[in-house]
Amino acid sequence: MKLSNSYFYTMRENAKDEDSVSGNLLVRAGMIKKSSAGIYMIMPMGKRVLKKIEDIVREEMDAAGAQELLMPALIPEEVYEISGRRDAFGSNMFALKDRYQKNYVLGPTHEELFTLAAMMKGRSYKDFPYNLYQIQTKFRDETRPRYGLIRTREFIMKDAYSFDIDNEHLHESYMKMFDAYKKIFDRCDLNYKIVKADTGAMGGSLSEEFQAICDVGEDVVVTCEHCGFSSNLEITEVVDRAEECREALKTMEIVETPNAKTIEEVAKFFDKSCDDFVKTLIYNVDGKIYAFLLKGTRELNETKVLKLLQANEMELASFEEVERITHAKVGFAGPIGIDCPIIMDREVSYMKNFIVGANKSDHHIVNVNLQDFEVEMCADIAQVHEGDVCPVCGAPLSFCKGIEVGNTFKLGNKYAKALGLEYLDANNTLHPVEMGCYGLGLERTLASIVEQHHDDDGIIWPLSVAPYQVAIVIVSMKDEEQVRIANELYETLKAEGYDVLLDDRKERPGVKFKDMELIGIPYRITVGRGIAQGNVELRARGAHENEEVAIENVVTYLQDKLQ
Amino acid sequence: MKLSNSYFYTMRENAKDEDSVSGNLLVRAGMIKKSSAGIYMIMPMGKRVLKKIEDIVREEMDAAGAQELLMPALIPEEVYEISGRRDAFGSNMFALKDRYQKNYVLGPTHEELFTLAAMMKGRSYKDFPYNLYQIQTKFRDETRPRYGLIRTREFIMKDAYSFDIDNEHLHESYMKMFDAYKKIFDRCDLNYKIVKADTGAMGGSLSEEFQAICDVGEDVVVTCEHCGFSSNLEITEVVDRAEECREALKTMEIVETPNAKTIEEVAKFFDKSCDDFVKTLIYNVDGKIYAFLLKGTRELNETKVLKLLQANEMELASFEEVERITHAKVGFAGPIGIDCPIIMDREVSYMKNFIVGANKSDHHIVNVNLQDFEVEMCADIAQVHEGDVCPVCGAPLSFCKGIEVGNTFKLGNKYAKALGLEYLDANNTLHPVEMGCYGLGLERTLASIVEQHHDDDGIIWPLSVAPYQVAIVIVSMKDEEQVRIANELYETLKAEGYDVLLDDRKERPGVKFKDMELIGIPYRITVGRGIAQGNVELRARGAHENEEVAIENVVTYLQDKLQ
Repeated sequence: MKLSNSYFYTMRENAKDEDSVSGNLLVRAGMIKKSSAGIYMIMPMGKRVLKKIEDIVREEMDAAGAQELLMPALIPEEVYEISGRRDAFGSNMFALKDRYQKNYVLGPTHEELFTLAAMMKGRSYKDFPYNLYQIQTKFRDETRPRYGLIRTREFIMKDAYSFDIDNEHLHESYMKMFDAYKKIFDRCDLNYKIVKADTGAMGGSLSEEFQAICDVGEDVVVTCEHCGFSSNLEITEVVDRAEECREALKTMEIVETPNAKTIEEVAKFFDKSCDDFVKTLIYNVDGKIYAFLLKGTRELNETKVLKLLQANEMELASFEEVERITHAKVGFAGPIGIDCPIIMDREVSYMKNFIVGANKSDHHIVNVNLQDFEVEMCADIAQVHEGDVCPVCGAPLSFCKGIEVGNTFKLGNKYAKALGLEYLDANNTLHPVEMGCYGLGLERTLASIVEQHHDDDGIIWPLSVAPYQVAIVIVSMKDEEQVRIANELYETLKAEGYDVLLDDRKERPGVKFKDMELIGIPYRITVGRGIAQGNVELRARGAHENEEVAIENVVTYLQDKLQ
Repeated sequence: MKLSNSYFYTMRENAKDEDSVSGNLLVRAGMIKKSSAGIYMIMPMGKRVLKKIEDIVREEMDAAGAQELLMPALIPEEVYEISGRRDAFGSNMFALKDRYQKNYVLGPTHEELFTLAAMMKGRSYKDFPYNLYQIQTKFRDETRPRYGLIRTREFIMKDAYSFDIDNEHLHESYMKMFDAYKKIFDRCDLNYKIVKADTGAMGGSLSEEFQAICDVGEDVVVTCEHCGFSSNLEITEVVDRAEECREALKTMEIVETPNAKTIEEVAKFFDKSCDDFVKTLIYNVDGKIYAFLLKGTRELNETKVLKLLQANEMELASFEEVERITHAKVGFAGPIGIDCPIIMDREVSYMKNFIVGANKSDHHIVNVNLQDFEVEMCADIAQVHEGDVCPVCGAPLSFCKGIEVGNTFKLGNKYAKALGLEYLDANNTLHPVEMGCYGLGLERTLASIVEQHHDDDGIIWPLSVAPYQVAIVIVSMKDEEQVRIANELYETLKAEGYDVLLDDRKERPGVKFKDMELIGIPYRITVGRGIAQGNVELRARGAHENEEVAIENVVTYLQDKLQ
């Protein structure tokens, strides 16, 4: 593309409303433009990158034997009611009525429609396995869209679904996709970790996430450097160390604790540590109030709770609810005399003589023990801490942040059963089909690449996804010889099949260099005064020096690098 | 692709709820599946065709210098309010609220967002021209979706928008797109006509439609075989022949006409022809009631009326409205004494002594003349008839039906003015930018190809868009030599870069032949008993005979045909 004659722009200033490095750089590079909250236009320069990622994804899906189709975004709401997922998605799903008042939603994911599509094929066991995928626009009404293309409300996803007759075959199909994902993210030059994750609203027996490691990531990736264990914080077990405290039981006592409200203040008041405190958190879980007991230094892990209670949504109880349940001001809840079921973290079950809220304003109870109250369940509901022991090998765990760019699920037969997708085995007996599903976010992958590949001057695209592989910059448009040589190089490289940008704008060379660096073109050829000596300058993006290369050699020289 | 190991199905029976040849064949061929009214899944075999059409469109757009981007489907409603189009689209636009009760619509077309995108580029006259396009999913809540992929509610459109500094440059940009469209439809092997059309809700000074000619088409294409004139029925002028009737004026008389309600019955009652009758049609136009006068043998052209009155919507007035306006039963409306403005067709202005309804039940008035009533406007508001004279050369007009697969508009500066897209000329004076817009329906193009290319056995895809160019059918899967030779041919043709299907299913040959014909693969190689003589059979789809070809020659022989 010749810039003089194209739609092209960049911005010198930082974007005002972008809260991530990738969002800011992509906006400044003229690759994206915000349309409304969490919804972006992908501008021409960005579309080229997105198309390259799309091509990589399609190639690897096809190579793994998956077949492409295309589902609609507008889906009758009843489809999700039949599968039981309408409530699970709740207000994350955009809902609308058509002109005849029929209820529709915008598909956030397509398990249901793919299951229906699978019913078109024969239902003999001989008709399996197969794998169907699409590269299609999804809609999710996120509470808090943010970080540029990382958490948006409209985005392109590649979603694939495998169909098998049993778990062994599902595992084979799953591994094919798993391997294809590794190839895709390797080709995109992403630094990622694969972690076990929660199966959540999707259902199923196994979920693994491909997490691109970067600081802006919203997921906490827990890893063990010793044994290689890795897992999403959401599901990482707090290991049951079963170390009972040897103290003798003391007598419970209610104590007035004026001006002590936080755990730290209460611990200080009693001259104890936070570890001697058991905190009581009150939540509304799918409309029912629960109290959760945790060691003072722990946080509640909501994912574990939702799974334990098989619930969809939870939020902290309102002030009114807390006061009704505890008969006290907020901040003094405790397990003794509270008017709701109690769920206790496993670690608490090894504690003795602990401090709790008294369900009475400005009072706590000391020397509380397990026999002083009743719990409905005791389970691992706490968030793991960095440095806690690895559930596999016992070494200390490390944390880092990740962006979930892909996930792979063994769904099992949840959808097949709900929608009636069955096959006949060799003995003519009906069984539900075993499904897998495999998601990959295209814009999120693009943004993750930028998070990992940039410097102060802009983006540094890997060759595989760069909008153009080479930029040719003409230093002086007034120098006819520079213009001629640059155009010749441009035509030659284009004829060789490379994506080349010719910066033939009437701008100062500094402006052109800055733009090419901002938009992250991997190689730059500068055609300037050096042509008098028969040379042009070659520079890799991110390198600090130019190489002088003879004009007649530059194409061959570049070809080596671009292979 | 090897069929034995793939997702593939066809249906022997006609689809129950498809009202077009293409809809039925595409469903039967396993290429599409209805998801809900006017919304389809594009199944793997259909996706391959759609992808080929998409590739052709992208190639021709890129060749014409357009740059691809991608706009969101979810658009704040206010964007269309600013441009003044929210009302014009009315309930054709899907509308919804997000979780924060903000109003959004699903984009039916993207003039507004492209205008906003154009503002990102510099605003000097030197920054023009450029052309931006996308291949993206559109949503329109059609009153009556039908004909398979021809009138749907969710569909992929290629829409391009050109930006120029004046009308001369707009014309150049327009012609580039116009030529690209011809190349695209030629490559798709469509029989089409280019016709002048209404500019409708889009605004602008010129609109041309690319109409694929077929019986299921919803548009009437008017052509003149003599001079080549062609036009959409919607805007074709009824030529003003200005032949005044020479009769002397007679005296008006009200007559009871028992049991005569239709024009034919009234004409018979008076022993006159329908041409002597002036019919009065009562419509609600954007909420206001109008009476339209037409010669008895004419129909009202609503497009002409909407344009004349600069209105958005019109529908026949309700029975209650008609009775209120005419003080009579429905069927006796006339221009004399009616309580609403009258708009008269130009042809009526040359009539004398005509018959009209009396605005009194079971009565008509004879010998009515122009001075007997007042009209608000007199204009060409009638539908042209086949055989009417050509507005250009006067020869008789012919009609055929067409599917609008593409359209090109000169929008002018309507959107630029509404949204503030301006440029500075060489004298630093601001002007609004002149825009063009260019739409092309991908699924509709696909369906039109099927409407034009099929026979009793199924689809006959043109080579350029066929899902596979060649199908290799193994007659007997038990014959190892047939299997070996077929697989070798398959690998050879694939290595040459062709899209090849290997039918290696354990089905009877008749089933395989029928399937390959139904899905319309252009060439079939049958590997059967002939291999004993060193031959396979080659057959073009639609041909009635097989050719015997030596195994070693078949690849070269095919290559010639596939070039």
